[in-house]
This record gives sequence, structure tokens and C-alpha cells, in this order.
Amino acid sequence: MPKIIDHDKRKQQIAEATWKVIAEEGIEQATVRKIAKATGLSAGALRHYFSTQSELLLYSMNLVSERVKERTMSKTYQGDPFDLVKDALSELLPIDDERRLEMEVWLVFSVKTLVEEKLRALSEDVYVEMKEGISAIIQLLVNLGLLKEECNPDEEAVRLHVLVDGLAVHHLLHPVSFPQQKMMDALEYHLKSICTF
Amino acid sequence: MPKIIDHDKRKQQIAEATWKVIAEEGIEQATVRKIAKATGLSAGALRHYFSTQSELLLYSMNLVSERVKERTMSKTYQGDPFDLVKDALSELLPIDDERRLEMEVWLVFSVKTLVEEKLRALSEDVYVEMKEGISAIIQLLVNLGLLKEECNPDEEAVRLHVLVDGLAVHHLLHPVSFPQQKMMDALEYHLKSICTF
Repeated sequence: MPKIIDHDKRKQQIAEATWKVIAEEGIEQATVRKIAKATGLSAGALRHYFSTQSELLLYSMNLVSERVKERTMSKTYQGDPFDLVKDALSELLPIDDERRLEMEVWLVFSVKTLVEEKLRALSEDVYVEMKEGISAIIQLLVNLGLLKEECNPDEEAVRLHVLVDGLAVHHLLHPVSFPQQKMMDALEYHLKSICTF
Repeated sequence: MPKIIDHDKRKQQIAEATWKVIAEEGIEQATVRKIAKATGLSAGALRHYFSTQSELLLYSMNLVSERVKERTMSKTYQGDPFDLVKDALSELLPIDDERRLEMEVWLVFSVKTLVEEKLRALSEDVYVEMKEGISAIIQLLVNLGLLKEECNPDEEAVRLHVLVDGLAVHHLLHPVSFPQQKMMDALEYHLKSICTF
């Protein structure tokens, strides 16, 4: 009987190996040859799944965004609205090893789009999705009557989006000067400043 | 008579050529060989100034931070405090081609520090300097009696630092979705929300 290979699962394993190489050695080291070695495949077998490095990168990066979305969607949000909103936003922050790896890889990839035009569309799509997700959180606060009256919902959505990304980048690049607790405190301070909790 | 070469000037020209290669082709392309070619020097002559790629990168990146400091210090700030603060913070944002190049290069370099430990000290030093600069701006607002009473100066310094970096990163990576005007509007909205202007 031929061995049954789950192609999707194999592709995800390859993508996860790609994340690891990017985080440990840099994106320029994420070559087909190197990833093949890391996953115990031949370069030829890896090319069966991804014929170019761009394809490999795009799939790997898309998987980051899928994982974040899956986690955000599958979560049961309960408790008071403040914890609910903080929890939802935490999914976009490097609060543990899993999310740290995903976000570090995503940051490296985003910066790579500055010189690799063909990677830009995915980065842009995810940017727009994240913007919409954050707008939805602000809208939820408006609907619950929790956003302070002096706050403009559109401006607050922009500010929160920029702030969440800024927090993630500060913690990823300066984990000692800007540890996780400081990141979470800053998020909490911000939410309290715009809400009537 | 031997040709007089201004060594500092030559080093700055080499650094500026390095910025250009980083912005156009990526940091992994900023090799001694390539930068030598871009500046019309032999690889040997370039090695006279910078014996390793790390030295070249560190000098080039330090020059980014020096330029920002020089500009910030030499500027005459006048007019009302709101414009003064907005002007000072604009020096940390990609508001024109010169600053865009500097900040793009700085972002690429910062991300590179994730995998290149020996570049990290400079990135950390500049981070701390920027943090102190932004704290000074918040302190100025406190001294002028312009920071709203409900605002905590320490927390506001953190929030402003994170926000300014977030604004720069959003505009650099998504110039179409997040154009310059949107970046400046978001900064203005934030300042108005914390100040009694």
C-alpha cells in the first residue's frame, strides 16, 4: 500500500520550518535548499510543494495570518468588556513563544516587502484585515456605550491599530528595555484612557 | 602635492551609498564589494575605511541617528507649544524623502539585529536616546501645564514613543493605505487628546 501523505499537513510543516529559519538566521537564509534540509526532504521533493522561494515565503506568511485568525475566531470571549477587548488585542501581540515567533517572522517578512514587490500584496491584504478587525473592536465599544464621548471612533481605530503594532515591534526588538509586562501595561493604560470602564 | 582626502567626508559618502543599497536591494546586498562599486572605490580602498561589513553597517546606522539628532538640535522651535511639539516629533517620522530613506534603513537595520547580535548594542542605545527625548517632550508639556490632569507623564511617554514608531512603520510599509497626511492627522489627534491646547 502506498504511503498516504497529508499534503496540507506537509506544507504546514515546511512553513513552520521556514519560520524557524527566518527567526534564527534571517529571511535571506530561508532558501529551498536549507528548508529542505531542515524538514528532511530533498530539494526536489520540496519543489514539488513550492516551486519557487517566493511561493514558499508567501505560503509560510499566509499561514501566520491564518493561525492568528483561527485563534481569534475560535476563542470564547467572556467576562467584562475590558478583559474581552484586552484579550482580543493580545492575539495581535507577542505574549508567548508561539505568538512571538509568528510576529517576529511577520515583521521580518513585512520589511522584506520593501525590496520585494511580489510579496507586497499579501502584506497589504493582512494589513487591511487587521485594520478592519480593530475597527470592529472600536465599534463594539461604541455599541456598548463604552467609548468616551470625546473620542472619535475612526481616529481611535487608527490610533489603536498603530499602537498595537508599535507595542509588538517595541517588545520584539527591545525585549529587555520593553518587557512583556510593560507592553501589556501600556495597552491597558491606553484602553482605560479611551473607555468609560 | 598629494591629494587631500577628507576622511570623515569619504566615510559619510560610503555610509550614504550603503543606505541607498539597503533601501533599494535589501541589507544582505550591502556588501563591501557592492558598496565599493557604488562609491567608485576598490574593495581594498573601502576596507581601508571599514575592515568588516559589520563596521560598515554600524557606522552607516550610527550616521542615521547622528543626522536625526543634528537636525533636531539645530532647529529653532518657535510658535505655539502645539506646533513646537508636533515639529519636534516630526523629526522622528518619514515626512520627506530624506527622512524616509533614513527611517527605512533604520527599520531594516533594527530587524537585522534580531539575528545579528553584534548590531544590537547600537539599536539599543538609540532606542534609549529616543525614549529619553520623548520623555523630555512630555516633561515639557507638564512644565507648561499643558498635559491633561488625568494623564500620567510616565505612561504618556511610553505611549507616545510606541505611537511615533508605530506611525513611522505603518507609513513606511503601507504608504498607500496609510499616507503621510493620515500619519500626521493621527499624531495631531493623539496630541490633542492628551493636552489642554
